[in-house]
Amino acid sequence: MGGDHAPGAVVAGAVAAARDLDVIIQLVGPTGLVGGELARLVDVSAPAERSRIAERITQIDAPDVIGMDDAPLAALRRKPRASIKVAAEAVAHGTADALYGAGHTGATMLAAHGALGLLPGAERPALAVLVPTLAGQSVLLDTGATLDCRPEHLVAFARMGAAYARVVLSLEAPRVGLLSIGEEASKGNDLVRDAQVLLAAAPGLNVVGNLDARDLFSGTVDVIVSDGFTGNVALKVGEGLVETLERMLKREVGQSLASRIADWLVGRGFKRLKARMDAAERGGAPLLGVNGLAVVGHGRADARAIRNGIALTARLVEGGMIARLKDALRAH
Amino acid sequence: MGGDHAPGAVVAGAVAAARDLDVIIQLVGPTGLVGGELARLVDVSAPAERSRIAERITQIDAPDVIGMDDAPLAALRRKPRASIKVAAEAVAHGTADALYGAGHTGATMLAAHGALGLLPGAERPALAVLVPTLAGQSVLLDTGATLDCRPEHLVAFARMGAAYARVVLSLEAPRVGLLSIGEEASKGNDLVRDAQVLLAAAPGLNVVGNLDARDLFSGTVDVIVSDGFTGNVALKVGEGLVETLERMLKREVGQSLASRIADWLVGRGFKRLKARMDAAERGGAPLLGVNGLAVVGHGRADARAIRNGIALTARLVEGGMIARLKDALRAH
Repeated sequence: MGGDHAPGAVVAGAVAAARDLDVIIQLVGPTGLVGGELARLVDVSAPAERSRIAERITQIDAPDVIGMDDAPLAALRRKPRASIKVAAEAVAHGTADALYGAGHTGATMLAAHGALGLLPGAERPALAVLVPTLAGQSVLLDTGATLDCRPEHLVAFARMGAAYARVVLSLEAPRVGLLSIGEEASKGNDLVRDAQVLLAAAPGLNVVGNLDARDLFSGTVDVIVSDGFTGNVALKVGEGLVETLERMLKREVGQSLASRIADWLVGRGFKRLKARMDAAERGGAPLLGVNGLAVVGHGRADARAIRNGIALTARLVEGGMIARLKDALRAH
Repeated sequence: MGGDHAPGAVVAGAVAAARDLDVIIQLVGPTGLVGGELARLVDVSAPAERSRIAERITQIDAPDVIGMDDAPLAALRRKPRASIKVAAEAVAHGTADALYGAGHTGATMLAAHGALGLLPGAERPALAVLVPTLAGQSVLLDTGATLDCRPEHLVAFARMGAAYARVVLSLEAPRVGLLSIGEEASKGNDLVRDAQVLLAAAPGLNVVGNLDARDLFSGTVDVIVSDGFTGNVALKVGEGLVETLERMLKREVGQSLASRIADWLVGRGFKRLKARMDAAERGGAPLLGVNGLAVVGHGRADARAIRNGIALTARLVEGGMIARLKDALRAH
């Protein structure tokens, strides 16, 4: 039931995932509503696909729904059978390998944290987002799970981010950098300066130093470590600027004689670019640090983003993400 | 002597300012070196301009120079006759109305703070930068002077930012917003949530609430208030992304059949855009909160940026910036 386009986009994304991925999907929500959407989509599927979908998609009833405007903590207490809570409990009970939800990020984090608890040594949860760079992709964490951090939290984030980069970017020794306002060790706020001392002494990490925020999208490090507030600001400034630049650039280029050609070309280029930048396309961000796999999708996710989010979730299950996180946190 | 291209670009920018602005410029630096640059530029000027330049540009000898790689505090102690220190003292002694420097930002801030002290109620200094938006320009502060802030510092920044916006953007009642990760009061880190309570109760400010970082360039508020670390990260993510996008977009558009035309058009559009985004073009950022006018230019400033920085500085002197800051801080 999560996200602006639920349950339609969620069920459609699940059906798309069932078609082309090797996954079993348990749809959690009010059975009548979800079942109606599912039946409608099965009806319009090719006959050969119907049995595949029926085999791969089951339902778990969860009559309560937490809306995007609800205060998450109060809503979770008031609605014990909310879909996000029931889904998190399925992971806790071992009847699901992972949870994927595109609803209220705060409610998803609280439900996952509450039902699953934290991994030993994780300190705090962190949302890890893949950002596009000139070189490919980098992991940025935390992007909003833990807004006020202590230096030791950032060290745990570095360990978890490196474990995630090993699975999702297939890297042996991901380069880790601390998000700051310059590469120099003397720059940064108290948190960054204290954390860099701890990070430099942390074994098992390929720490390359501080990353100037100017180089966030340069691809010079694979894992960018930040407190959740700064990381979220950085991500949102980037997303907002892409939208703003597109409008500014069309206006600038539009002044030329060949404005219609330029509009078309720039529009095309930006469409591809935005596909790389857009959170919806990325599908989801794992909530690292909780003792079970939970992936948070974007509230504006459409069916394709939901399908991509399920694909990412399945990949992390297959990659043994939780076992790797435990190793990374336990080793030190 | 400040900046990567000093003293050549600084002297050339001063000569350009002397030509077309109503200002008297005192060039501070090693007299021989600066005088040589000046003589060379006067020699190639039109005869009619020579006397104007000679009347408007004088020199103050300051034999010491602080380099971009020096540790600022130690360098200022070791070099009592450094150009930036001598310039700050000229403002403190009233022999100059304002200081403009494009050198080491940390050294400029320390020298200005040391020689001029803080305005009553200013709490801490803040660097105020003009950022381009869809609607025009907004003031973002702090962008690096005070990296670790308490809530009351942000309230003083809001007052100073509003006073600056009144002068530089000619606004009656600038809209003030607190940089956060959503518009909702419930979002944000401890600093933002404590500051918003203080701001909401602060008289004389047109506070519109929290600004989602996604809307940094949207122009929905005129003054964006932040701690210096987050503000600097936001600014640098924006600057870095423009550079990265230009390279990505040229690559994307370059795949088309009309790639050469597209390259040219996109290059042209981006050039204009970058002119709006680029820190060098903005000329400078005033260090608000010190008891005297100090404007910090970009280290990469060329002659044109220096000239623009001097123009901004002159405009702030004429606008009675310091008196307005005193009023804004004293009124409450």
